[in-house]
Amino acid sequence: MIPQLINREKIYIENIGQYEGKEVKIHGWLYNARHSGKLSFLLLRDGTGVIQCVISLKDVGEEIFARAGQLTQESSFVATGTVRADKRAPGGYELLVKNIEIVHIAKEYPITPKEHGETFLMDHRHLWLRSSRQHAILRVRHAIIKSIRDFFDSRGFTLIDAPVFTPAACEGTSTLFETDYFGEKAYLTQSGQLYMEPAALAFGKVYCFGPTFRAEKSKTRRHLTEFWMVEPEVAYMDLEGDMQLAEEFIEFIVQNVLATRREELQILERDVSKLESVTRPFPRLSYDEAAAMLTTPEAIAFAQEKEAPAFVPGNDLGGADETYITQKFDKPVLVHRYPSAVKAFYMKNDPQQPDRVLCVDVLAPEGYGEIVGGGQREDDLETLEAKINTHQLPMQAFRWYLDVRRYGSVPHAGFGLGVERTVAWICGLHHVRETIPFARLMHRLYP
Amino acid sequence: MIPQLINREKIYIENIGQYEGKEVKIHGWLYNARHSGKLSFLLLRDGTGVIQCVISLKDVGEEIFARAGQLTQESSFVATGTVRADKRAPGGYELLVKNIEIVHIAKEYPITPKEHGETFLMDHRHLWLRSSRQHAILRVRHAIIKSIRDFFDSRGFTLIDAPVFTPAACEGTSTLFETDYFGEKAYLTQSGQLYMEPAALAFGKVYCFGPTFRAEKSKTRRHLTEFWMVEPEVAYMDLEGDMQLAEEFIEFIVQNVLATRREELQILERDVSKLESVTRPFPRLSYDEAAAMLTTPEAIAFAQEKEAPAFVPGNDLGGADETYITQKFDKPVLVHRYPSAVKAFYMKNDPQQPDRVLCVDVLAPEGYGEIVGGGQREDDLETLEAKINTHQLPMQAFRWYLDVRRYGSVPHAGFGLGVERTVAWICGLHHVRETIPFARLMHRLYP
Repeated sequence: MIPQLINREKIYIENIGQYEGKEVKIHGWLYNARHSGKLSFLLLRDGTGVIQCVISLKDVGEEIFARAGQLTQESSFVATGTVRADKRAPGGYELLVKNIEIVHIAKEYPITPKEHGETFLMDHRHLWLRSSRQHAILRVRHAIIKSIRDFFDSRGFTLIDAPVFTPAACEGTSTLFETDYFGEKAYLTQSGQLYMEPAALAFGKVYCFGPTFRAEKSKTRRHLTEFWMVEPEVAYMDLEGDMQLAEEFIEFIVQNVLATRREELQILERDVSKLESVTRPFPRLSYDEAAAMLTTPEAIAFAQEKEAPAFVPGNDLGGADETYITQKFDKPVLVHRYPSAVKAFYMKNDPQQPDRVLCVDVLAPEGYGEIVGGGQREDDLETLEAKINTHQLPMQAFRWYLDVRRYGSVPHAGFGLGVERTVAWICGLHHVRETIPFARLMHRLYP
Repeated sequence: MIPQLINREKIYIENIGQYEGKEVKIHGWLYNARHSGKLSFLLLRDGTGVIQCVISLKDVGEEIFARAGQLTQESSFVATGTVRADKRAPGGYELLVKNIEIVHIAKEYPITPKEHGETFLMDHRHLWLRSSRQHAILRVRHAIIKSIRDFFDSRGFTLIDAPVFTPAACEGTSTLFETDYFGEKAYLTQSGQLYMEPAALAFGKVYCFGPTFRAEKSKTRRHLTEFWMVEPEVAYMDLEGDMQLAEEFIEFIVQNVLATRREELQILERDVSKLESVTRPFPRLSYDEAAAMLTTPEAIAFAQEKEAPAFVPGNDLGGADETYITQKFDKPVLVHRYPSAVKAFYMKNDPQQPDRVLCVDVLAPEGYGEIVGGGQREDDLETLEAKINTHQLPMQAFRWYLDVRRYGSVPHAGFGLGVERTVAWICGLHHVRETIPFARLMHRLYP
């Protein structure tokens, strides 16, 4: 039986500084222990932080002192004691223990300080979350998500949740997850954009923010099958406004994380100077300027070294191309006005150069790749119908979407930002699998 | 061609009071118009509000005055003029127009002031969002979602997004959507709870908030196939703490909406006195007390009148039973400690009455049914294994979930709150289909 010791008073290590000199009860788990004769030092974690508990045989007596010795890694216990400031202690405070109550002695904990393989750790993801690095990453993730919502909520955007179930497959079904929907076929959404456009004409400024899905048979370190995306859309906005919004947005996220999650970035050994430099304005390159950079001898050698295909002017940028460009700058880079042929049908053509579209991709620094893709949407009914025909898409499936151009069409623009790539960049992680609590990859559906 | 008039200065009707006496440009759509000789009154909506534009032939001249006459319902245009306070005007301000620029003349707009059927309106959901009632509902929805996140974020909870793709089907596959996951079967989540429990032991207090799915062949006004749910989970918390958390949470949401969305509730003709009374403490009934209420002659007559099955002591409560109970109170009602037989395997048995579990349902007032379900979880490994066997569930699929009881088990509790039912209740709506931007129902996958 598990003793029903509970924590309704809610004193957490995160706020322990408020209780200096006072007696508190902390409810948690043993992170690590060190015993030296008549003293025990227990690192107690409670999910919000870690505090060192000092237990002296002389102060607590033999029975309680023996309990401290019984605790195995990740055993749960409640420590009662006095909070004392100590600059040498991790977190700046320690607990002079008066009593220890054991809740549950953990069996042999599978994750030990020794090195484990990634597969083993991912198989134990539900426990791995307790480790300090994973804990720090997911606290940064939360701060990023909160920043995203705060940004739009404080700027008059209305949240319009896009549906997950979508009827028609717009751009081929090969990367879509399919499900039987009461006898019909339904597909899991890849983007809420088509829904955000009519919503922008109803609410002025909107965003959606939810999970999106991609059934790509890809095993790269940048791909998840299930990932979160935020997609703002604004009526009466052009590409220039869209680029300004994306810049302001990314700066806001990064500076917010720096302001609120320094401790976690330190645990992750992140070079914060690389984040501190993420301030507006960001460098901007037209596709043509980017293409010129990518066809220099240096760029060609770079691609060869990475065993990546050489950049072909007129084509989309590859991963190595993005890395090459971003390493030339210490801020995110905006690349705009790609060839119409490599972008989606709904992009608006640039009136100045009709074979280009009014789109923008934002590439994260340090080789983290595209974190934002967006642009101005085609707002003319006939032009859009022609594009749907050119792309050989089923006109009937877009009837409702075309209504946006039938009833009070306006210039409008938006973009999508992928949360997991943003977390990977800000935390400085090698692989996106650590950026989400329970990652879903081609070969990973458990736990 | 759509004129590319854009709105980078960002003056919206919502904030028009800041510009009294000043000249502004408002970008929007025609909501309604009235013409009387040499004066035109245009109701201009911009997604954040509606303002009356007054156009006088004498002031603007014939050309501009004629433009006002050209505008059909939902045509897009930009009005330049001076903001004037006027108590009689809707919103308290009007615009004395100096110029009108037409962006796009809408074709015959399908939604007119006449009555339309629900099917027609749902088929035109992408346009229906522009109507004042739907606009108001989704602004309230946004306020509810923001309140939910603010509540947990400001109380030290960590957001832990639960996965949508889940491997094993825990409680029968009949109400689960299934998809092919690279040759394996995956199911769309019905609840993130099993993931929140290990997360609570890693972070102390956590919540997930995302879409969940139910393939129920149900056509009632309370069921969607895709709906949003928030699920907090707290380590070292018991049923009493869980009930206190749920009460505080619901009060917070309702009082927040009252503080920020009065205007929208007025558009919806909601009796706000019924919301103002939603303050703690809420009435609490044990299952036995609820059962006693439901077996009175009055309650039996009530069920008969509703053509609902009579309540059978020992069984779960039906919709009519919930309605009967809640109409006796002016606040949400907490019903706790149901028979073990009608609740899920993971509920902890009440040590005082072993055939009851430490669960709680919160029933919304005015017949809106269950909005919260939760309770304390079984924390003893052997007891939980025995329950899994009793329920004939596959032990192997729960291996990772059982780890929560192997490594530092603690008392813990949580609940789930359904967003759409909460929106329906707070807005006073008959059917949940209006509570979400693009509803997914058994026969509704479009638009």
